[in-house]
Amino acid sequence: MLVQIITIGDELLIGQVVDTNSAWMGRTLNDIGAEVSRIVSVRDRHEEILGAINEAMATADVVLVTGGLGPTKDDITKQALCDYFETKLIFSESVFENVKRLLANRVPMNQLNKDQALVPESCTVINNRVGTAPVSWFEREGKILVSMPGVPQEMKVVMTEEVLPRLQKLSSVEPLMHRTFWVKNYPESVLAETLTEWESQLPDSIRLAYLPNAGIIRLRMTARGDAGEIARQLEDESVKLYNLLAKDIIAEGETSLEKIVGDALKQKGLTVATAESCTGGSVAARITSVPGSSEYFKGAIVAYANEVKTNLLGVSEKLLAECGAVSEEVVRAMALGAMKALGTDCAVATSGVAGPGGGTEQKPVGTVWIAVANKDEVRTFKQVSDRGREMNIGRAGNNALLLLVELLS
Amino acid sequence: MLVQIITIGDELLIGQVVDTNSAWMGRTLNDIGAEVSRIVSVRDRHEEILGAINEAMATADVVLVTGGLGPTKDDITKQALCDYFETKLIFSESVFENVKRLLANRVPMNQLNKDQALVPESCTVINNRVGTAPVSWFEREGKILVSMPGVPQEMKVVMTEEVLPRLQKLSSVEPLMHRTFWVKNYPESVLAETLTEWESQLPDSIRLAYLPNAGIIRLRMTARGDAGEIARQLEDESVKLYNLLAKDIIAEGETSLEKIVGDALKQKGLTVATAESCTGGSVAARITSVPGSSEYFKGAIVAYANEVKTNLLGVSEKLLAECGAVSEEVVRAMALGAMKALGTDCAVATSGVAGPGGGTEQKPVGTVWIAVANKDEVRTFKQVSDRGREMNIGRAGNNALLLLVELLS
Repeated sequence: MLVQIITIGDELLIGQVVDTNSAWMGRTLNDIGAEVSRIVSVRDRHEEILGAINEAMATADVVLVTGGLGPTKDDITKQALCDYFETKLIFSESVFENVKRLLANRVPMNQLNKDQALVPESCTVINNRVGTAPVSWFEREGKILVSMPGVPQEMKVVMTEEVLPRLQKLSSVEPLMHRTFWVKNYPESVLAETLTEWESQLPDSIRLAYLPNAGIIRLRMTARGDAGEIARQLEDESVKLYNLLAKDIIAEGETSLEKIVGDALKQKGLTVATAESCTGGSVAARITSVPGSSEYFKGAIVAYANEVKTNLLGVSEKLLAECGAVSEEVVRAMALGAMKALGTDCAVATSGVAGPGGGTEQKPVGTVWIAVANKDEVRTFKQVSDRGREMNIGRAGNNALLLLVELLS
Repeated sequence: MLVQIITIGDELLIGQVVDTNSAWMGRTLNDIGAEVSRIVSVRDRHEEILGAINEAMATADVVLVTGGLGPTKDDITKQALCDYFETKLIFSESVFENVKRLLANRVPMNQLNKDQALVPESCTVINNRVGTAPVSWFEREGKILVSMPGVPQEMKVVMTEEVLPRLQKLSSVEPLMHRTFWVKNYPESVLAETLTEWESQLPDSIRLAYLPNAGIIRLRMTARGDAGEIARQLEDESVKLYNLLAKDIIAEGETSLEKIVGDALKQKGLTVATAESCTGGSVAARITSVPGSSEYFKGAIVAYANEVKTNLLGVSEKLLAECGAVSEEVVRAMALGAMKALGTDCAVATSGVAGPGGGTEQKPVGTVWIAVANKDEVRTFKQVSDRGREMNIGRAGNNALLLLVELLS
């Protein structure tokens, strides 16, 4: 089953909104064995929407359209769909009931809400229980087009509860299988060289991809075919890969650094805290993005000002004066201070110059000291080179979590 | 100048990576008066890359391609470009020097690094000072195609320093102008109704879009034409809009809630801290994502465990036992405790049930109490309804920052 995704909205093209829907859809479609061959984003223009629909329907089995279903004038997807499918808009009492139910207690009904209940006559209307924009399901010449709201939360509920189950029933394709390995410590070209021989003997049914991201490369094997046979082949190749990379594979599958950390903490029955300067709470936010993290995460002290480092983390004023806030000594003291103040088994600390200002000759923008500590030891890491404030903070978070994984392993 | 963006890589289609490049490119191209008409993401397949290039070159003036330039086997963009432009790959000594410079101190050179120095013969090669993949600039029949690395940080540097200045020289189009207004307190349909009359009298040169996001709607007017004339029209309409919405417009332009908060704090010369339970440090991380935030942000206490609320924020055990951690009383105490512990002029606090677990009948998943405080008053807000852990945390952050904006206004 080949799928194309069309996302509609000027905001995507002028860059006011990042299209996160497509990646989520790609992931969930993969799980049911469907493959996304193309993602197209177009503006709120009738002819451009029609053009994208025409092209997609010519090549894909299923076309998923998101966006342009709101109550305002710039939302024109429904009209474009009517033109493509040569039908017209009719009023749907059940959709209107849903709109009333969702807004009734907060907002008086107006004409715009009534217009939201207009649906293309020739489609099957699927109720959207979490939003006012209905879902339209069209079929033509064995192909399917589904139009959904662009609000990510609504799209996800509608896809999960309504669209995916229906697609799954239609689909008789062989499942697509992935195995993904999280590899640390390699520049991409060195990893590729290390794997040259192994890669060249991979069966034709397996495709390999390298997905590098700040200190971590994800290696992904993808295969399609007879489920049992493919699973065996993937397992054989995984064994070889583990033999080649040994301990540099820190995890497998659809996970994240924060989940890997959480799993390790749970397994050992340990608690953690963070003490953050330049990362500003983002390491704690990443750790707590994992459901159930309250089991091992007690809290964090974000010590942006030096007085907070002293008052709450117990870093001595003398140390700060002698070594500077961005130093191995201070970041060690921060990690130990966090363990004490928050009463945890281990802690991670960061202090650096995120930029763009604040750099010096000795400590240029991009310098970040990281420490992890438990009751037995403290380990430190120095991150260098400036990639801009956002990346400097993000990489520091990655390196902090990686160092914690190593401490826990 | 009409631009199409092509992003290449299986990881985009199977959803392992979110395409953030396109939005950034759309924004920066807009600034120089160029308009992105379409974004297409395709897999690492020769025929699909060629197909996308063919289509884009047929309709756009400029085609910007990212991705597929790495040193590994799955990176095939250069070969597809050679086929499209009927040229071949040749070895570039200067690109190889750049690869050596970037990797020399860390990695021994191997054949893969040499292959990175292969470039299409008929293009102009532009150096990539922050990465190993070179930029290729092609021209054919008055149209331009530029191939760039897909790593966001490299793409941004290359676009900013090399590609945009060259495009700007070629471009003689009238600039595109935007004015964006941040409106609080409206459901989209109610705002649209409030603005019906004003919207219907907008000059044809101005397009209006509604961009809703968790408590905030951005209203964007876009116009193209004679710069002076358009600026006057936009100014006239902005005045009318301010008259209609008055204090519900909290900011204008390309900004963010965290920047709006930062500007308000700087203007008043006040400092802030956060005390976070369910938001886990993400409010602090958002505040500190703004360069220069150390001027007004002192720190945060993430109090996930109740003992941290007591020990570091001074929330009494009695209050926690009587009201529960997710309560107006506790979140008030947390905000006041943060002001005291961190020595700031004001503070924001959150406590809630992010989910998916932890809900009760009285406090279902999605319930979040928010408080903001300064030396004169404490304000609170209760967020309800469950949109999933990630959205619950994100909305709580939005609402916390919004409440702070109101306190500061």
